[in-house]
Amino acid sequence: MSTILLKQISFNSQIKDVLIEGNKIAEIADNIAVQADIVIDGKDRQLLPGFINMHTHASMTLVRGVEEDCPLQEWLEQIWKIESNMDEEMIYWGAKLAILEMFQSGTTSFLDMYWMVPQVMQAVEEMGIRANLSYVFLTHSDQAKAERQKRECMELYRASRNWCDRCDFSVAIHADYTVDEKTMIWASNFAKEHGLLLNTHIAETQAETQTDITNRGMSPVKYYDSLGILDENTVAAHCVWLSDEDVEILGKRKVNVVHNINSNLKLSSGYKFKYSELKAAGANICLGTDGAASSNNLDILETMKTSSLLQKAWRGDPKALPIDELMDLSSLNGANALNINAGKIEKGALADLIIVDTRSAAFVPNVDFEADLIFAANSSCIDSVICDGVLVMEHRRVKGEDEILDNVNRLAEKLLRTSK
Amino acid sequence: MSTILLKQISFNSQIKDVLIEGNKIAEIADNIAVQADIVIDGKDRQLLPGFINMHTHASMTLVRGVEEDCPLQEWLEQIWKIESNMDEEMIYWGAKLAILEMFQSGTTSFLDMYWMVPQVMQAVEEMGIRANLSYVFLTHSDQAKAERQKRECMELYRASRNWCDRCDFSVAIHADYTVDEKTMIWASNFAKEHGLLLNTHIAETQAETQTDITNRGMSPVKYYDSLGILDENTVAAHCVWLSDEDVEILGKRKVNVVHNINSNLKLSSGYKFKYSELKAAGANICLGTDGAASSNNLDILETMKTSSLLQKAWRGDPKALPIDELMDLSSLNGANALNINAGKIEKGALADLIIVDTRSAAFVPNVDFEADLIFAANSSCIDSVICDGVLVMEHRRVKGEDEILDNVNRLAEKLLRTSK
Repeated sequence: MSTILLKQISFNSQIKDVLIEGNKIAEIADNIAVQADIVIDGKDRQLLPGFINMHTHASMTLVRGVEEDCPLQEWLEQIWKIESNMDEEMIYWGAKLAILEMFQSGTTSFLDMYWMVPQVMQAVEEMGIRANLSYVFLTHSDQAKAERQKRECMELYRASRNWCDRCDFSVAIHADYTVDEKTMIWASNFAKEHGLLLNTHIAETQAETQTDITNRGMSPVKYYDSLGILDENTVAAHCVWLSDEDVEILGKRKVNVVHNINSNLKLSSGYKFKYSELKAAGANICLGTDGAASSNNLDILETMKTSSLLQKAWRGDPKALPIDELMDLSSLNGANALNINAGKIEKGALADLIIVDTRSAAFVPNVDFEADLIFAANSSCIDSVICDGVLVMEHRRVKGEDEILDNVNRLAEKLLRTSK
Repeated sequence: MSTILLKQISFNSQIKDVLIEGNKIAEIADNIAVQADIVIDGKDRQLLPGFINMHTHASMTLVRGVEEDCPLQEWLEQIWKIESNMDEEMIYWGAKLAILEMFQSGTTSFLDMYWMVPQVMQAVEEMGIRANLSYVFLTHSDQAKAERQKRECMELYRASRNWCDRCDFSVAIHADYTVDEKTMIWASNFAKEHGLLLNTHIAETQAETQTDITNRGMSPVKYYDSLGILDENTVAAHCVWLSDEDVEILGKRKVNVVHNINSNLKLSSGYKFKYSELKAAGANICLGTDGAASSNNLDILETMKTSSLLQKAWRGDPKALPIDELMDLSSLNGANALNINAGKIEKGALADLIIVDTRSAAFVPNVDFEADLIFAANSSCIDSVICDGVLVMEHRRVKGEDEILDNVNRLAEKLLRTSK
């Protein structure tokens, strides 16, 4: 069993030795005298739980920067056209680029919703990140497609039982406007039956929300709830357009609500996310970046800052979304949603950890580490990353970086050429 | 005369050689065959004009992180209390830290408004950045103080004629609620008489704006205009709360309006900045970070992203504040406000330039460099900085960094201890 010893490192306002054995934190003490395989000096360093990105479409790194300053419908149509030309090789390398940048910005787990799950799984397995990959239902009203997708979902679920321990399987309903009701119910039941997460987009735009109210006589949240879908294993991305009743339902059902502020801002989807109301109602709020086509990067540290700034701004309250809650949003809440023992620095927890280099202007003067991290620094302060007990980034170097950059440049060029 | 040759470097969608002689761009051509003192290989690099930070209080790096998640009034009182204990050594090292982080985030010029101008000037002179330093009037209704400040201002103006070429002098009216009317007029006239910029805060908060409307019967903008202050040499920071008439006045007077989005968000000052209206009216819009006590860092690249996201969000228009305009906001418009021949890569322009390393995940795939820079990257992509023809940051190293970090840590600790 491999071991990593972090010597005299700061975390939670204390300085300790932290010993990692296998994939877990084995011991935390003032002084641990063991011969570890790797010893890391904690001088000018802070230890944090790795960030958890609870909503992304990893392989969309392939289309980063493709459609800019563009109205939503035009953007969607162009992206869909390009996506229809993606092949397995592209999905695989796109996911690897996503994982590379997630490590470089301190993320150790992500929840993904995209096509060609086996290729993403292979990238996850090889790169050493932790992930939960959702098979996505997207049927519109095509029943033949729905049947084919059910079969694929069942096959993939069976196959997933042989995946490595870092990689879990889940089911996704793309959205209530892209999946027929029968399939929504089937997918939800399948997830419940097998103890899987049910991942979905809810109330991302005002138009989609209003359409539900007009056509179904109820909001998207009420509609999902009327089908019996919502529970503590549901992950609902966006939830930008919520009534008070919607907030109450999401809270009562203990839904995991994922806030994707940068995507919501850039696509003009909306920004009045009801953070404090959702929290008070009992929802578990997490952070996501969305795919790189909408928010351009997969940087949770940036997401933390923007989320806090927007809450303070639209509520007119500088105390809104305070720092300690932001820290939980970035890690612990995501771990709870994913049912993994992570997001904290405790004996027995998974060793999914990031090491921040505090020897830079952003952390001077040394008054409030967390404020400096969120509001002054950027993710280049993340010096090293440990995931599942393995040092996957050391002094900002991730194995295979050049190969990933070259392959994605090559494949994106091909993809855009064929999509013209 | 020292020379720098940039070999085969990308900029403005072309690849050229760029020769810097002394402090100017001397030649741009397909191939320049000279023996330069420094030769920089343009492979995987993009050249940009250096960013210009048009509103900051540099030495406030000393109080970074001191008051977080705090209501505005409490924040102000605490910051003022601490500021009253700052000495010359603190101001000097605080400014040095600010300049260090400005270089590291690609800024080559800044407009500063703070106390103890000679100490800030010394930091500017030693570090090699370009700056315009405002003497700040802050009198309330104290006429003795006003007279003392006028004398100080005149003395400083005289002294400034011996400052180095990189450093200009200007006059600041802190705000119309902190400076008496007679002194506002005196300061404005002094600036006009000597061809200096007049730097001020206008309409930052709703409360301050409403107070003017109630007490003076007119908005802050109308009030400044009624005193004959506003013209193309006025720099008006914030301008968050503007009526249509205010927008028209600022446009007609060709005022330089500085948008400080991160500070406005974090302090809950307001976010509905009327960018497109001000631009259409004729104002020259620039970007600023404000001091590190309110926005926590001095990163113009981050400011560019947040400014664009907020315009897209509050207007519900993903096309708002497009990328090419953002690029001008970050550099050319600031140069025009400061009356310097910078903010562009042209023969004869000042060699205030930044070199971006595009060999990283944020710039892959290689589709839209500017979108990648603003929306995917962070300022750690800035590899090297040339200011006034001198390579002031090379591969992210700035001379004297350790000394600056150590001194600010020491002095901030002393400052906070004495301010308890």
